[in-house]
Amino acid sequence: MVTWFGQRPQRVEVPRLRARGVSHPSVKVDIASLTPDLMHFLGQAAYMELGEFESLARAVATAPNLAAKEGLSAAAGRALSKHHGLITEIRRRGAEPDEAMEPFVAALDHYRAQTQGGDWHELLLSCYLTGGLLEDFFVRLSDGLPRDIGPRIALLLGEDSGSFVLVHELQDAINANPALGSRLAMWGRRLVGDTLLLARSAMPVLDPVTSTESRSEPVFTELIAAHTRRMDGLGLTA
Amino acid sequence: MVTWFGQRPQRVEVPRLRARGVSHPSVKVDIASLTPDLMHFLGQAAYMELGEFESLARAVATAPNLAAKEGLSAAAGRALSKHHGLITEIRRRGAEPDEAMEPFVAALDHYRAQTQGGDWHELLLSCYLTGGLLEDFFVRLSDGLPRDIGPRIALLLGEDSGSFVLVHELQDAINANPALGSRLAMWGRRLVGDTLLLARSAMPVLDPVTSTESRSEPVFTELIAAHTRRMDGLGLTA
Repeated sequence: MVTWFGQRPQRVEVPRLRARGVSHPSVKVDIASLTPDLMHFLGQAAYMELGEFESLARAVATAPNLAAKEGLSAAAGRALSKHHGLITEIRRRGAEPDEAMEPFVAALDHYRAQTQGGDWHELLLSCYLTGGLLEDFFVRLSDGLPRDIGPRIALLLGEDSGSFVLVHELQDAINANPALGSRLAMWGRRLVGDTLLLARSAMPVLDPVTSTESRSEPVFTELIAAHTRRMDGLGLTA
Repeated sequence: MVTWFGQRPQRVEVPRLRARGVSHPSVKVDIASLTPDLMHFLGQAAYMELGEFESLARAVATAPNLAAKEGLSAAAGRALSKHHGLITEIRRRGAEPDEAMEPFVAALDHYRAQTQGGDWHELLLSCYLTGGLLEDFFVRLSDGLPRDIGPRIALLLGEDSGSFVLVHELQDAINANPALGSRLAMWGRRLVGDTLLLARSAMPVLDPVTSTESRSEPVFTELIAAHTRRMDGLGLTA
């Protein structure tokens, strides 16, 4: 059995605190040029975590057994607590949370609807993969935020999301039913595409001189590597 | 406008800490004879709070605007945190949370399905009235638990549940639409019936000598009084 738990420290969390033995792109990224302004970042990340919470809460409500329900409720609580941590930062700056999140509602609701899956296991895989990828992404971008807040945000978003219960439930189901594994592998490939497009749209618009595309490539390479490790951990082909 | 906030201290919270000027039944209730054993109490209360969380999370997901969504997410977080507080007490006693909750799943799921309402406002009223009544009920019963845990449980369950957002949304909607008020008043009367039956079933079975019915009556009188105050606060006829 693949030990997902052993792999966790390799996840792309805070770039300043990289795990030993993990290769990283040699291209130096000026992350600040890819990071949106602070309130944009906070509003978008806060609504992302609220959506992650809603998806996990739906997984709680539709869980087939009490042990899964209980584990998922803890994961939902963690997403909610990250959301409220971001809301606190928004309020601390005198802004209204709903106004800060409003610009991102349409795109994120559409994304959430597209990626919620057709059954409970697809929903779990979505929570796990898109939650992981988007948190990695916002942690990475937070490096370009002002120094009095960036590290705090990285710490908040990088906190354990309680996803071991998702991994556990998915692994058990895949082991018991190889056909489910094939279906989930396809679903995972679809999810990563949609999620990377969403992440791309979170960055500032193209700069014609040094294009955002070329500067953002190393970031996406890291995100995809972490995604591939998550898929591998489940025994799924990325 | 009725000031719900001013009324809150009158809510039946911890009987040992009664608010000034509130009349109470003169019949002395031996609450310990009505309180189930500790693990029964914890499993049932924990699953009740998990259900309250699920209902609130559904209200978050279906909220018509971001400000309501945000306020409800905080209320959902509080129900979840009470749930996890009870789970901690279950674990502290060496029991498994899912085993402790299992005996109550069928009845509470059935109750939850009956009381979830046909639209968002009915769902909000359910969260508010049934959450309030059941928390009052378990706080009251906790007085019969062992002294090393009862007061802690009363404190946990009696904590502010963030329900001001429910009251605010319901009052606004009722003021804007009197027909909704009539419909919600009927819905509230149905909810209290179902909820009192559920509460009754949480007590030990009838004792033929001094029947549970007569001993539990003062408790139900208090619960109904608090329910009536909630309805009044919304301008609804209980």
